[in-house]
Amino acid sequence: MSSEIYSYIYNVVMDKGALDIYTQSIYMKKNRPAIKLCILCKEDDLDKFIDLMLLETSTFGVRYNKYNRVVLDRRFEKLETEYGKITVKLGYHNGKLIRVTPEYDECKKIAENRRIPLNFLINNINHLINKKFKINLLT
Amino acid sequence: MSSEIYSYIYNVVMDKGALDIYTQSIYMKKNRPAIKLCILCKEDDLDKFIDLMLLETSTFGVRYNKYNRVVLDRRFEKLETEYGKITVKLGYHNGKLIRVTPEYDECKKIAENRRIPLNFLINNINHLINKKFKINLLT
Amino acid sequence: MSSEIYSYIYNVVMDKGALDIYTQSIYMKKNRPAIKLCILCKEDDLDKFIDLMLLETSTFGVRYNKYNRVVLDRRFEKLETEYGKITVKLGYHNGKLIRVTPEYDECKKIAENRRIPLNFLINNINHLINKKFKINLLT
Amino acid sequence: MSSEIYSYIYNVVMDKGALDIYTQSIYMKKNRPAIKLCILCKEDDLDKFIDLMLLETSTFGVRYNKYNRVVLDRRFEKLETEYGKITVKLGYHNGKLIRVTPEYDECKKIAENRRIPLNFLINNINHLINKKFKINLLT
Amino acid sequence: MSSEIYSYIYNVVMDKGALDIYTQSIYMKKNRPAIKLCILCKEDDLDKFIDLMLLETSTFGVRYNKYNRVVLDRRFEKLETEYGKITVKLGYHNGKLIRVTPEYDECKKIAENRRIPLNFLINNINHLINKKFKINLLT
Amino acid sequence: MSSEIYSYIYNVVMDKGALDIYTQSIYMKKNRPAIKLCILCKEDDLDKFIDLMLLETSTFGVRYNKYNRVVLDRRFEKLETEYGKITVKLGYHNGKLIRVTPEYDECKKIAENRRIPLNFLINNINHLINKKFKINLLT
Repeated sequence: MSSEIYSYIYNVVMDKGALDIYTQSIYMKKNRPAIKLCILCKEDDLDKFIDLMLLETSTFGVRYNKYNRVVLDRRFEKLETEYGKITVKLGYHNGKLIRVTPEYDECKKIAENRRIPLNFLINNINHLINKKFKINLLT
Repeated sequence: MSSEIYSYIYNVVMDKGALDIYTQSIYMKKNRPAIKLCILCKEDDLDKFIDLMLLETSTFGVRYNKYNRVVLDRRFEKLETEYGKITVKLGYHNGKLIRVTPEYDECKKIAENRRIPLNFLINNINHLINKKFKINLLT
Repeated sequence: MSSEIYSYIYNVVMDKGALDIYTQSIYMKKNRPAIKLCILCKEDDLDKFIDLMLLETSTFGVRYNKYNRVVLDRRFEKLETEYGKITVKLGYHNGKLIRVTPEYDECKKIAENRRIPLNFLINNINHLINKKFKINLLT
Repeated sequence: MSSEIYSYIYNVVMDKGALDIYTQSIYMKKNRPAIKLCILCKEDDLDKFIDLMLLETSTFGVRYNKYNRVVLDRRFEKLETEYGKITVKLGYHNGKLIRVTPEYDECKKIAENRRIPLNFLINNINHLINKKFKINLLT
Repeated sequence: MSSEIYSYIYNVVMDKGALDIYTQSIYMKKNRPAIKLCILCKEDDLDKFIDLMLLETSTFGVRYNKYNRVVLDRRFEKLETEYGKITVKLGYHNGKLIRVTPEYDECKKIAENRRIPLNFLINNINHLINKKFKINLLT
Repeated sequence: MSSEIYSYIYNVVMDKGALDIYTQSIYMKKNRPAIKLCILCKEDDLDKFIDLMLLETSTFGVRYNKYNRVVLDRRFEKLETEYGKITVKLGYHNGKLIRVTPEYDECKKIAENRRIPLNFLINNINHLINKKFKINLLT
């Protein structure tokens, strides 16, 4: 399968409601470097994604297994910044705020439009986050 | 374990009836780049392959889990080509033909014997396949 | 450096005229899995891209070297298909046509709009290419 | 997450009683090369390590599954060598000795102190092991 | 070569004055996943490191090439924090401060001794750095 | 390019006199996991291998550079073993024997024919080598 097809697959899979998607490089028998495509989806969506993998890739088979997940409770807020409002994602563990990250897609757009380095922008946003939110990782 | 031992392992494992085998490069604690060997086999063969991994590699332990698989129904046909008969593998999903691929080992031999580029040969075979078989990925 | 910053870097680097960009996963001292960012650019653009790497990433240093390149002569044509006109890239070696590939971004858009599998579409386009163009890899 | 944080994570995780830890490089959507952190622990320790991953890394979620393991029975012995006593790990399968390896951390210290190549030292130790222990991989 | 030997090699190579060292996983002929060891050193040290690679690893040959480097000017300062003094590395480009990072080994020790998450500690240090230092990535 | 084509490429390239060949997994722009094919050849063979890469792979361009190599002086001997004569490769550095390794292809054949684990066989051969050859890595 041409490697250029992956960006398409990534889009299709996420659009159809997958929880996550990633690839890993593996080495198969007969000297074949290859790509292993991994999709994480809800149990109810299993058949849909098996069909999608069989139809959209060049594979002759799909393996699957059941995993459990623990995820942080998520909340989204708007943060006032000198660059305008930016969405930040808040992660709670046992009711305690332990993580706040700015939405990268929004930061990316600002950085591209204003022609400022993205890591400079994110550094400034993180500075604001540190002032505004009380993150506590101590148990 | 010396990296040269893998081609031997790949052969032994497939000869003993494994469904598939591949390796992944991983990074372990204490600055150790390492190779993770993965074997896919039928449940009845589990003990045989655990023994094989313990005896044939340098590992002190083997992990395993149960996976489900969905595979295309496969049929093999001979395709007449200007290079002689070549086996093609047909894959069916819900009774519909969705994939036809030539057997690479046969193509490889022809390419090596006739000193023609393998991708040129495969391109021609795929052209023939497109003429002869009605592949339909539309749902 | 957050992994999310790479898509931004890829865009910035290509927009500024790099010939190519890719990353490789490496393993550094002190148990650090890391990402090596590689940019291929014209010699005249060297200073620009060194500055860009120092400003846009978290690195404290950049290594570079001079490589030679041999590239196929490229020409672009429009191919009439049942999906509309699609650009194809033609590659010539010593004046001989040895490669024709459809532009993936255009194919991707069509596949997404028409909700047909991209590999099905590309297969059909390649079939057309095989009919229309005389590709010859024989020396 | 900065790559330098991994050596810390590796230490914390092993100190808290994990059975093993490793990372794999993966490639996520939106052009993000990333690192997948895998921890192998006893079932009773599951909650502890999920908490640890959520608190000590930048992730918003953890996946887990139950694996079975087959491990060699292990015994440790002291081996008299020209470099002093060195611990060797013995691995038994079905009551039969099939593997003997010197403890690398001890060998490493000796090699560093005496300024002799580690592979030279290990080769000599393996020579001694071959004389002293009867390893038999034949079934 | 056993993968456990790498942490030793990493130490030996850095102790002997290399500028950097890293490994990459590659895939060789005959189905051999392997590790490529890369050392970056000053030109005057070339012979020393070639000898070291030939003696300390299992290789039968070493390849080398000359690379140029551009590095940030570096200065080190002590930063007063609630955890005591921590060294920070300052990076200057064309005389302008563009990067300040805390020394991870020191942070790691504090995190381990005080049993606080390292990413929490580093986040706090970065907060202090943002207050004390004027980093400017704008050209 | 289909991953199955690599074993063919590896064979063709080595048959045409390359010094070495390997692949690396890389991540390109537009979410494309890809394979970088590296060939090491003599300077006189450069044109031949550039042509080969352009014709035998799907690439539109090839990069190359000049590397220096230091290799051990090699000599081959036959070693009498309980499994018959086996070729061993001797490596000399500054006239001193520093490495002796059995030829894996021969060992592999014996292991497959006699159905004994290859690592068991190699361990025994190394034991013999240690008795017969005086390897000295001390400077």
